[in-house]
Amino acid sequence: MKGYTYDGSKEFSYLKFDTTDTGGLKKEEAIELMNKNLPEIDVLQKKFYAEKKMGLIFLFQAMDAAGKDGTIQAVLSCLSPHGVRECAFKAPNSTELSHDFLWRIHHCVPERGQIAIFNRSHYEDVLISKVHKLYKNQPKASYIKDSEIIDTRYEDIRNFEKYLYNNSIRVVKIFLNVSKKEQTKRFLARIDQKEKNWKFSSADMSEREFFEEYQKAFKDAINNTATKYCPWYVVPADHKLYMRYVVSQIILDTLRDIDPEYPEIDDETAKQLKGYKKILKEELEK
Amino acid sequence: MKGYTYDGSKEFSYLKFDTTDTGGLKKEEAIELMNKNLPEIDVLQKKFYAEKKMGLIFLFQAMDAAGKDGTIQAVLSCLSPHGVRECAFKAPNSTELSHDFLWRIHHCVPERGQIAIFNRSHYEDVLISKVHKLYKNQPKASYIKDSEIIDTRYEDIRNFEKYLYNNSIRVVKIFLNVSKKEQTKRFLARIDQKEKNWKFSSADMSEREFFEEYQKAFKDAINNTATKYCPWYVVPADHKLYMRYVVSQIILDTLRDIDPEYPEIDDETAKQLKGYKKILKEELEK
Repeated sequence: MKGYTYDGSKEFSYLKFDTTDTGGLKKEEAIELMNKNLPEIDVLQKKFYAEKKMGLIFLFQAMDAAGKDGTIQAVLSCLSPHGVRECAFKAPNSTELSHDFLWRIHHCVPERGQIAIFNRSHYEDVLISKVHKLYKNQPKASYIKDSEIIDTRYEDIRNFEKYLYNNSIRVVKIFLNVSKKEQTKRFLARIDQKEKNWKFSSADMSEREFFEEYQKAFKDAINNTATKYCPWYVVPADHKLYMRYVVSQIILDTLRDIDPEYPEIDDETAKQLKGYKKILKEELEK
Repeated sequence: MKGYTYDGSKEFSYLKFDTTDTGGLKKEEAIELMNKNLPEIDVLQKKFYAEKKMGLIFLFQAMDAAGKDGTIQAVLSCLSPHGVRECAFKAPNSTELSHDFLWRIHHCVPERGQIAIFNRSHYEDVLISKVHKLYKNQPKASYIKDSEIIDTRYEDIRNFEKYLYNNSIRVVKIFLNVSKKEQTKRFLARIDQKEKNWKFSSADMSEREFFEEYQKAFKDAINNTATKYCPWYVVPADHKLYMRYVVSQIILDTLRDIDPEYPEIDDETAKQLKGYKKILKEELEK
């Protein structure tokens, strides 16, 4: 997914990004391509689990109604919960707020062999925190200047993700980029369809007033934290089926790049297994 | 404790460091000075707890028998467990080993208002790990080179501690520097005194063979991670009472520098308190 990759070598800009892009694919074609990807993802995840050399985080960020939850379900429910878990980072609770902002995140970083899906993440601390200046209300050391907090967090995040990379954990960051017009349509659908009403709140309505500020916060976050070892993928999100296919392709490409293998056993173990086979067979034949 | 501070502006070297230093103090004088420090530490910790602006870590590293546990007890048992806790980092268990090396450490980073005593720490990952090349046996991503792991960890640690500083958590790193001769004497005492036998193991004996390699690992760790915002204190440890006094002084100086205050209440709350006082007094007078 080369065109959607931001690794620091080019800048992400909303003006140059087409949220309605479908890569020339029809809906059915997008579905077919995604469905072709899922079984290979499944096989690679099983090898990844068995190999236990690395940890892997697929991190999702998006504006409201961009289709984050639906995409996670469509693409990742092909995987067994054995070795894959979702970590949803909601508004921090009081315990989390009394800690440094990466404390709750680091706790959910997977061990080797595991894949974690981050549904929102530490990026909230440079998104909603930036837009609403939430950091102003938090107690802090006297040497900390409010005006420098967001820039310092970019640096903290870059270093944290580099640290994870240095320690065999890859972070794949995916931003589902939906237009304001498409968001409006999806909000209307949530109001019109009774079984979707629970997904809409007055907060969604009031946050819309900050749409442009959120866009700027996303742009700044992406451009300040896109690196070679931990790139951002910006995925056009106005067409759900294409978006899901693209996400499945990013996940597949990542796993192919890692190229996990079932652990090979040494000659000694192979010999032991032969012996065990003999004993087990004899037991059956008794 | 200026002479013992390493903040990156000078290099730590064993040759230039006198482990037998007592600052010209007699034993009784060292005891007296420490006992003078403890009540002030206690008062400042209570303010630190009430203010809840910062977290604080006192991190202890030392060769075996340098007096780490005894110092922690002598200096820090003056404090209430309310707001102070010890985190002892032993050899990592299997869960911890399957994670990145800072995972278990970050989990124990205190929230604002709390003081954590780290009895050993992430520095074990560049001390025993370096001396015995433990990192060689750990599974890792194919892009990681064994020869670069220790240097990368220095960088990871520097960034981690800077991150903590950026997020209102100070890390005070204390290395109790004992000579090999003094260690030998203390090991002999552990063998001679029956109630100290449990403190001595065959591992202590075999690790002695690596004394010089450990010294080099400590020197490299200190010189690679001593920074302005997170300095190392190297404390002469051949004389226990002086060592304890110096540690008490480092702790006191840190708390004085932070200069915590009980939170001030605003006029509105002051007015409320006056009203409550009236109600409570009237109840007593009924």
